[in-house]
Amino acid sequence: MSHPKLGELRQEINGLNEQILKLVQERARVVVEIGRLKRELGLDGFDPLREEEMLRDLTTKELAPLSAADVKTIFKSIFRAALEIQDRERERQLRVSRRDLVPAHGIRVGNVAVGAGGGPALFVGPCSVETADQIDTIAEFVARLPGTKVLRAGAFKPRTSPYAFQGLRVDGLKLLRAAADRYGLATVTEVLDTSTLDVVASHSDMLQVGARNMYNTELLKAIGRSGKPVLLKRGFMATLEELLLSAEYILNEGNDAVVLCERGIRTFERATRNTLDISAVPLLKQATSLPVIVDLSHALGRTDIMLPCARAAIAAGGDGLMMEIHNAPDRALSDGMQQMTLDECARLVAALGLGHAKSAPEGVA
Amino acid sequence: MSHPKLGELRQEINGLNEQILKLVQERARVVVEIGRLKRELGLDGFDPLREEEMLRDLTTKELAPLSAADVKTIFKSIFRAALEIQDRERERQLRVSRRDLVPAHGIRVGNVAVGAGGGPALFVGPCSVETADQIDTIAEFVARLPGTKVLRAGAFKPRTSPYAFQGLRVDGLKLLRAAADRYGLATVTEVLDTSTLDVVASHSDMLQVGARNMYNTELLKAIGRSGKPVLLKRGFMATLEELLLSAEYILNEGNDAVVLCERGIRTFERATRNTLDISAVPLLKQATSLPVIVDLSHALGRTDIMLPCARAAIAAGGDGLMMEIHNAPDRALSDGMQQMTLDECARLVAALGLGHAKSAPEGVA
Amino acid sequence: MSHPKLGELRQEINGLNEQILKLVQERARVVVEIGRLKRELGLDGFDPLREEEMLRDLTTKELAPLSAADVKTIFKSIFRAALEIQDRERERQLRVSRRDLVPAHGIRVGNVAVGAGGGPALFVGPCSVETADQIDTIAEFVARLPGTKVLRAGAFKPRTSPYAFQGLRVDGLKLLRAAADRYGLATVTEVLDTSTLDVVASHSDMLQVGARNMYNTELLKAIGRSGKPVLLKRGFMATLEELLLSAEYILNEGNDAVVLCERGIRTFERATRNTLDISAVPLLKQATSLPVIVDLSHALGRTDIMLPCARAAIAAGGDGLMMEIHNAPDRALSDGMQQMTLDECARLVAALGLGHAKSAPEGVA
Amino acid sequence: MSHPKLGELRQEINGLNEQILKLVQERARVVVEIGRLKRELGLDGFDPLREEEMLRDLTTKELAPLSAADVKTIFKSIFRAALEIQDRERERQLRVSRRDLVPAHGIRVGNVAVGAGGGPALFVGPCSVETADQIDTIAEFVARLPGTKVLRAGAFKPRTSPYAFQGLRVDGLKLLRAAADRYGLATVTEVLDTSTLDVVASHSDMLQVGARNMYNTELLKAIGRSGKPVLLKRGFMATLEELLLSAEYILNEGNDAVVLCERGIRTFERATRNTLDISAVPLLKQATSLPVIVDLSHALGRTDIMLPCARAAIAAGGDGLMMEIHNAPDRALSDGMQQMTLDECARLVAALGLGHAKSAPEGVA
Repeated sequence: MSHPKLGELRQEINGLNEQILKLVQERARVVVEIGRLKRELGLDGFDPLREEEMLRDLTTKELAPLSAADVKTIFKSIFRAALEIQDRERERQLRVSRRDLVPAHGIRVGNVAVGAGGGPALFVGPCSVETADQIDTIAEFVARLPGTKVLRAGAFKPRTSPYAFQGLRVDGLKLLRAAADRYGLATVTEVLDTSTLDVVASHSDMLQVGARNMYNTELLKAIGRSGKPVLLKRGFMATLEELLLSAEYILNEGNDAVVLCERGIRTFERATRNTLDISAVPLLKQATSLPVIVDLSHALGRTDIMLPCARAAIAAGGDGLMMEIHNAPDRALSDGMQQMTLDECARLVAALGLGHAKSAPEGVA
Repeated sequence: MSHPKLGELRQEINGLNEQILKLVQERARVVVEIGRLKRELGLDGFDPLREEEMLRDLTTKELAPLSAADVKTIFKSIFRAALEIQDRERERQLRVSRRDLVPAHGIRVGNVAVGAGGGPALFVGPCSVETADQIDTIAEFVARLPGTKVLRAGAFKPRTSPYAFQGLRVDGLKLLRAAADRYGLATVTEVLDTSTLDVVASHSDMLQVGARNMYNTELLKAIGRSGKPVLLKRGFMATLEELLLSAEYILNEGNDAVVLCERGIRTFERATRNTLDISAVPLLKQATSLPVIVDLSHALGRTDIMLPCARAAIAAGGDGLMMEIHNAPDRALSDGMQQMTLDECARLVAALGLGHAKSAPEGVA
Repeated sequence: MSHPKLGELRQEINGLNEQILKLVQERARVVVEIGRLKRELGLDGFDPLREEEMLRDLTTKELAPLSAADVKTIFKSIFRAALEIQDRERERQLRVSRRDLVPAHGIRVGNVAVGAGGGPALFVGPCSVETADQIDTIAEFVARLPGTKVLRAGAFKPRTSPYAFQGLRVDGLKLLRAAADRYGLATVTEVLDTSTLDVVASHSDMLQVGARNMYNTELLKAIGRSGKPVLLKRGFMATLEELLLSAEYILNEGNDAVVLCERGIRTFERATRNTLDISAVPLLKQATSLPVIVDLSHALGRTDIMLPCARAAIAAGGDGLMMEIHNAPDRALSDGMQQMTLDECARLVAALGLGHAKSAPEGVA
Repeated sequence: MSHPKLGELRQEINGLNEQILKLVQERARVVVEIGRLKRELGLDGFDPLREEEMLRDLTTKELAPLSAADVKTIFKSIFRAALEIQDRERERQLRVSRRDLVPAHGIRVGNVAVGAGGGPALFVGPCSVETADQIDTIAEFVARLPGTKVLRAGAFKPRTSPYAFQGLRVDGLKLLRAAADRYGLATVTEVLDTSTLDVVASHSDMLQVGARNMYNTELLKAIGRSGKPVLLKRGFMATLEELLLSAEYILNEGNDAVVLCERGIRTFERATRNTLDISAVPLLKQATSLPVIVDLSHALGRTDIMLPCARAAIAAGGDGLMMEIHNAPDRALSDGMQQMTLDECARLVAALGLGHAKSAPEGVA
């Protein structure tokens, strides 16, 4: 590899590299200055017309051994590099990338705190609020679980078919609130739309943005303005970058109390309802300081592998687990197959080493 | 294959089949009667608790050579068959499955009709309304295209990042309306949320539900109540069944003026922005009488294969094409790369044999 | 937008652009010279160690306002641009990209020619050779179809389960050859492995590489050396770039007689067996001059939308169609559901306007 | 819900259920007898023609309130249930489903045992054997790792492009063997084709079937006959069922020494090279007693989240980890970006609590 001519040519490249570096530095200085000026003038940083003009200018010159296409490629990559610097700059400035988003005591949800360390938080409850008895039985059970827990249950349900059970809506909110209050629990429930945001926010400690609403930017903005803690689920076909930008919509309105939730993505594999993207957990933790939890029920759609997957979620760094439970899953009005029984849930929590559920008061399941 | 014993056993099976058939017929008669009674009583048809009970009853008997699991499998398949009969019944009753949804003269959108035969309708315009001049230039061009056309342009934009151009919103609606009126065009524009539905509906002839909002059931219901014609895009992660049920949300509120739009699905292939699912066109046409169009720009994300794909969309039975055009795509504030120039669009329309654009008035591009 | 200071800064950028251009041109000249020298010395063009060294050198200098990371980004993009020039160069040199691969009279397959224009070629036949009668009946039918046709049928079958029908293997090859010869047909059949390549090649006019073997580089190379015409199917998980590089494996061994076949990709949608990627047709036609056909049976897995999809495939520029047919699909030993009856096939071919099947000799179905 | 008429009708259903059950039991007895007879006669169990005939018979009768389609649906589900019983029977009989496949001391690979408990086995080494020095340095490092380890490295490489580095082939096998022997290590390397199986098998302790060859049934059968231990990777677009059936091809030839490997599936997400399907681990462990390992390098394609994902793989029940390492990843001839340095690997193994690497002999990195 040490042919002398090769050595000479490489020296020449080194010299040219240095000269190019100096000019690119100089160019970057001017670009930064232009950016600053444009911000002062209230103009957008990116100006494709201006790029087009520069490329037209450059390609009217003598270009050999490069072709016009080559010059465009190279300069577009210089422009792109400059834009990437700006983008990375902006990304560093993305609120979601800040390392100090979560206060030392965690994100407050009702009377508990999420994301402050101290073991995974449990977001547990039925798919839907169905009856006063059902939600009471389940709330009573959740209250006895060890550690940090939030009672989850749907009142407004986003169902594929208009003829499927759509949730008890405001009645469901009331039942959920009452049951939670009886046992001293914090709650999370889904909000579907800006028009029902206020009523949901007034009954629940935390708002859930479901997977189908992750791209609903108007809702995200309104939730941002509401100031309520949010559980933001990843869309089942959304990239992690898109999830982070959806969070940014909320943060940008002044609301940092966001918990991110991986809940499986849609793939070709049918052994599970979705495919749990476990690498999302460390990737999100790396990209943001917001807490990251895993919704095992929607990711898996089956309860028989819940325990090993829960272990994996925690091992990967997850700050919490979401799991659907039901006192009688076979009878559930929605998603029966993926809901655990209360016993199964108690056993799973014990197997995870999170402690044992407190014994039930007499006469309770 | 003609072993005598085998023949005897098969005769036995035939006899048993007949007896089972008689009983299943009898059972179906009773199930139908129960269904009728439950509808009268206002009860839901499906009752998992009841199934559970029947299965428990059945599996307490002597089962050999079957196991309890086998009996459950068989009876669940009998139950399922019964439910499938009911489901098919209900599906036949799904409004979206009706063959008479579209009046003979098509779905009226402003001053044109879509889905009445007579060549594919063109939904053409820029990604976003940007300036009065831009939308005027483009509207003037669209008006000269042959056949049925609708001017499309975004005013409320659902962007991944909160810092990307969010559309001119109400100002954009006004500019779009003004330009369309100047050239006698019908318009379609996206509606993002129930809170802005009224203002969009009052400025545009047709409402567009974007791919990210296909699951937004609250919006679908509100649009159904609005009575305005709708262009409903398939979510990029949505099955066809889900798309049809989203349409059902709108129809169920009394609004049949729905046009379905295939716009590509998210797959692993990166040569195109999404993967155009061409088989969606005949499958949807088979499942519903609503018109079906293809959004080539979002499916492909590139303009160089627009013509063969447009031909394929029409050959597959598509009732229309959606295409993004821009008078200066390089300068576009959004989605520059996938927008055609006006000239490219004119050439494509001519190559499709839809006729030639009328010549422009003097001095126009 | 015409602030005077902005104008000045832009002039400065223009000057810097010019100087950078000159240096990058000079650098490209030297890189080209190095490439030439390395080829003479038999060295690989890409040397990551050398890039690493250059980057280390560059980042030891004073870099403000750039960071070390910025400089790496910019120079990596300059390196990448240089490599892209070389890659595009190499790609232009990829044999598969040549515009003259197919002789004017097309690729000869037995007594017919594929890809010479003159209407789509039909690759038609049963999934598997099953019996002498079955393949004879079907061959007799195929011979009466209008236009260019090739009899397809599997003898060596790549089945998911070891207990599923694995094909008649060499016996199947003989039955296929005999039936084809009786009716003067060319044949194509799948080859699974280098060890059976010779026997397949000696009985069939064309070799098929199935979707599951598209990445089988040893097989591709051996087929390249065999010189036989090849039907190369896209893997159901393969990008178009990967398909083209698989073709390159064959071409690189001196065999240009390759027909590419889109056969659907695996996605989340379950209405079809796979998702027909119609944009693959124009994209492949753009990338290579090899003929491109569409396997409708495997893409769709259902026969009811075969006709509109066949129309789409032809409209998109396809050079041929592959379709599975069977004289008694319900009884087929493999893939019964996706095979058309002979009557359905005859009607489809007529509806496509490819002409009508010649009437059968007396007494034939 | 306790309407009296409803109660009566339900009693009637109960009675009919019982009668149907008796007949289905009787029918099952006869089906089992037919199956037994057919096995004796060497006939296939499934006979679609016979089903067709039964359905034709049944639908010629009076069917109200059922339609012919309904009867077909119901009886097909009865047939299907019967077939499912047989299938589950056969599946229970699938060798891969047996709980006793792995001897108590695990699967022997050279001088180590995999899958016998006692901590995850490490399959570690470079993507490709490149030089004697490179593989020696790495082997020396691997030998010092704690616990069970196997040296992995490619000699025959399945590359997408014919112009990419194809591996040192037989020379690579020899270098790998020599390095492994020097440090007392067991080896695994990929086999691409039946034609090179013998030479690979004679140089390596374990054969690897790569993701692109998982469907290569001829290769699987030949490997089954070879009797060598196998590392079978899941195809990146393969379902778990398909992976298990590929393993069955090997087992069916009398070779039970199979280790399964999850290595990520191809999805839309691009933050990782593939998407690690963590639920595959418990699902495979549930379906088979074969050991299951996770290839982190190919699943992730990046090293920065290797540790949390390794923890997740072990927490989910994985029997081992595969990781690519290189003494100088930047210089690697293939897959440089996803290979860890030796230091990174040592730190990761320590962080996993598998113990610390033994200190290197003097003068070694």
